[in-house]
Amino acid sequence: MKKFDHVTAEGILFTDFYQLTMAQLYFRNGIHERPAQFDHFFRNYPDYGMHQAGYCINAGLEWLLARMKETRFRDTDIQHLRNQTGRSGKRLFGDDFLDWLLKSCTFDGISMRSVPEGRVIHANCPLNTVQGPLAVAQILETPLLNYLNFQILIATKSARIKEAARGRPVIEFGMRRAQERGANAGARAALIGGADFSSNVGASCALGFPPRGTHAHSMVQTFMAMGEDELSAFRAYADLYPDDCLLLVDTVNTLESGIPNAIKVFEELKHRAHEPVGIRLDSGDLAYLSIQAAKMLNKAGFPDTVIVLSNQLDEIVIWQIISQIEEEASKYEVDPESLINRLIIGAGTRLITSHGYPALDGVYKMTALNVKGDWVPSIKISESASKIPSPGTKQVWRIYDKRGRATADLISTGDETLKNISSLVLHHPIEEGVFRVLNQDDISEIEPLLVQVMKDGDQVYKLPSIDEIRRRRKDDTDRLDPGVKRLISPHRYHVSLSQKLWDLKQEMVAKIKKE
Amino acid sequence: MKKFDHVTAEGILFTDFYQLTMAQLYFRNGIHERPAQFDHFFRNYPDYGMHQAGYCINAGLEWLLARMKETRFRDTDIQHLRNQTGRSGKRLFGDDFLDWLLKSCTFDGISMRSVPEGRVIHANCPLNTVQGPLAVAQILETPLLNYLNFQILIATKSARIKEAARGRPVIEFGMRRAQERGANAGARAALIGGADFSSNVGASCALGFPPRGTHAHSMVQTFMAMGEDELSAFRAYADLYPDDCLLLVDTVNTLESGIPNAIKVFEELKHRAHEPVGIRLDSGDLAYLSIQAAKMLNKAGFPDTVIVLSNQLDEIVIWQIISQIEEEASKYEVDPESLINRLIIGAGTRLITSHGYPALDGVYKMTALNVKGDWVPSIKISESASKIPSPGTKQVWRIYDKRGRATADLISTGDETLKNISSLVLHHPIEEGVFRVLNQDDISEIEPLLVQVMKDGDQVYKLPSIDEIRRRRKDDTDRLDPGVKRLISPHRYHVSLSQKLWDLKQEMVAKIKKE
Repeated sequence: MKKFDHVTAEGILFTDFYQLTMAQLYFRNGIHERPAQFDHFFRNYPDYGMHQAGYCINAGLEWLLARMKETRFRDTDIQHLRNQTGRSGKRLFGDDFLDWLLKSCTFDGISMRSVPEGRVIHANCPLNTVQGPLAVAQILETPLLNYLNFQILIATKSARIKEAARGRPVIEFGMRRAQERGANAGARAALIGGADFSSNVGASCALGFPPRGTHAHSMVQTFMAMGEDELSAFRAYADLYPDDCLLLVDTVNTLESGIPNAIKVFEELKHRAHEPVGIRLDSGDLAYLSIQAAKMLNKAGFPDTVIVLSNQLDEIVIWQIISQIEEEASKYEVDPESLINRLIIGAGTRLITSHGYPALDGVYKMTALNVKGDWVPSIKISESASKIPSPGTKQVWRIYDKRGRATADLISTGDETLKNISSLVLHHPIEEGVFRVLNQDDISEIEPLLVQVMKDGDQVYKLPSIDEIRRRRKDDTDRLDPGVKRLISPHRYHVSLSQKLWDLKQEMVAKIKKE
Repeated sequence: MKKFDHVTAEGILFTDFYQLTMAQLYFRNGIHERPAQFDHFFRNYPDYGMHQAGYCINAGLEWLLARMKETRFRDTDIQHLRNQTGRSGKRLFGDDFLDWLLKSCTFDGISMRSVPEGRVIHANCPLNTVQGPLAVAQILETPLLNYLNFQILIATKSARIKEAARGRPVIEFGMRRAQERGANAGARAALIGGADFSSNVGASCALGFPPRGTHAHSMVQTFMAMGEDELSAFRAYADLYPDDCLLLVDTVNTLESGIPNAIKVFEELKHRAHEPVGIRLDSGDLAYLSIQAAKMLNKAGFPDTVIVLSNQLDEIVIWQIISQIEEEASKYEVDPESLINRLIIGAGTRLITSHGYPALDGVYKMTALNVKGDWVPSIKISESASKIPSPGTKQVWRIYDKRGRATADLISTGDETLKNISSLVLHHPIEEGVFRVLNQDDISEIEPLLVQVMKDGDQVYKLPSIDEIRRRRKDDTDRLDPGVKRLISPHRYHVSLSQKLWDLKQEMVAKIKKE
């Protein structure tokens, strides 16, 4: 049995087969090095079924850039391709093409403008524009979509969970239900989106985050299997981690055994001048149990201990639990706000799989070709007007209203500058004659979103740290209208075209239809 | 910006943080090397919403065994752990424990019995039993679940798609919507489950499969952007791949442009003594369009060309399309059976994400502890009887009826042998007094499913090739009752306990309840 060669599988051949057969076709037709521009964007916000996203969070760029820098065709890759045969038994790839792949097909000729990670992003806005040799840009399509679709998807889910948790700490717990090695990209995206910690040790350490966790039911069960009990398991844990004692209280019976035993151990810790951290609830009615737990902990003199909630949590369940606590807690003489302020959210499966919407529909479309040094817009006609990407080079501008809230993203042609204008026309992306005019007085800020990250293969962008990316996410979500952040049926954020881009697009569509 | 260290993130620290804090607790209490047994199983078949699985396909073992062999604590890993501090600012992990991790915490002491890959598997049957030092077996939990949950999930979805496609060729196309590096495990699992090819070049090559693909809309659009047309794009493709010419016909207009242009090119190929492969449909009403396409291709003298269908296909959509073809084709003078027999299925997003059910609920529970050389069953009590795992060492037996069909999986204690018995009691796993008796005459075969794969860290199992795994899957699904394979609301396959295991479990539960 030959060992699976992960290096090959994760290298330059991490792409779809047709990218290579098409690349050879471009090579054979002498157009493989013709500079082309592709735009990356997603068409729809995640729709999780009974709830929907009104925005997404950008993530994944740093890892994509690293991949572009590190992967290139090796002899082994070429050998694999040389072995591919068609129906006739003849080789599919010619030696001249393989030679070109080996020697010249690198991402060194790529230029790229991108929206930075952590930013709020919207449907149908270019997130990345890639310019480079046609065949190279084509081979890049699959890894680009693979990397960015997934991290954006998970960062978005994480941001929703963080919103639902009202900013309380969130820990990503999903590794055992994650998608094999995809767990690491998922953990990073969760941290970008809003999770404060991950239980994933390797990914956390590699990102410079402290990994976090509590303990499992299995610890209590192990003690029980050895003839001891829950209390002795808790004591052993408190002895070893006196300043980090967070106890999972639902292995035997939450209210009758777990919490009373935790309180006993907390009292012993207090006696030894240690401050207990709190408890975790992982089953049952988490709203009811957290109220009862708070009541018992308060009565015992531990009002500052935290209560970690976990068990199939997503934004909707969290929102429901917190709402119920708000309504019900005072009936049990527990102050709802104080209780909410001691909650910590453990989100696992439903975060790491983006439960309800497991894949973002990011696409990568050619929008310009370079002819003798000039970028000539190209367009793809579709029967559905919403599926026609805007042609040519572009910039995306975020418009902030007088309150400082983001009110629209405006896509312009690449040569427009929106600074110092007296009024701004925001054209509906599809419907003729529908537009909105903003006067200078209505606008507090206009900000370009696409920045140059690669120029002819050189990274010309200082990668922000993950903390900076996380701050960026927080700043951007803070500047979103609450309606856009609503978990269910959010308000549709405006994505508009500039008059110039609208005119260019209509002109090109009309010309093709006439032909 | 420090580069993300994938080696660390994918190494031995690819686990949950609490596994390490618990391991230190076991170390501190002197029980870290106490031999313990953990059983791995899943509790529920995937429920995709409007349809449900009645069986799963086992996958992922080979990669898990490779990981166990290859990963161990390195100095870098220990350094990461040494840097972890608690709330007090003091280090969380002691030097003695870290020293033990570095020197002694390897998977070399693990023994494992497993159900081979490719086998049909059922809910609540042990798929793997792991025996080894308590702390090591605990650290293994997360990667084991991560690897096996995901591959089983995708292999199962793939098997359902293959069933719905009535055994016609299936190509896995999902890479761009897959979960970053998880794409490779997903491609492997899809191939095990029933897909015949994958578009993922790296994973296919590493597995010794020929990657497959057609071409993208972008190829036609590129030609159009350069002032040429669909026909010239098709001609260029046919020139380069005369014996592998499969054309995507829906870029412009399927019936008015794509298929007529494809037929033109096919005629030119025929003239040059090449046999065209066929067409791909990626949008629109795939049932209607495939009938019209067949009609046009037949009329043009290409009745043997294939028709590849793609676009958000899953088992239910495929089943619907094929059913509609069966009902409708003859109205257009197309023979339904011949048409179905020329279909090829391209399954992407919904295969690689297991659409509707993105995570298998596999768990890993302690079921025995070794006391002075003897395995003593241990049990975990739960308020829900279905959540109490069967205690002790075990074997799983598949019982085949007189027709040679699998009729039940029977879980016995590890020391039972079911060969040469005159009758067999199959006890309901939860309900008292509910059982089924099978006489020798009712049974054609009794087959043990768990085989020894690792003994004290040595692999004692010859890993089957992926072709052998695929054959195994086919043999097993062929021996399943059609009711169990039904896509919607399948018949519940019997998973039973032997009388001896039932008695042991009841006795242990009663004893604990008395305490």
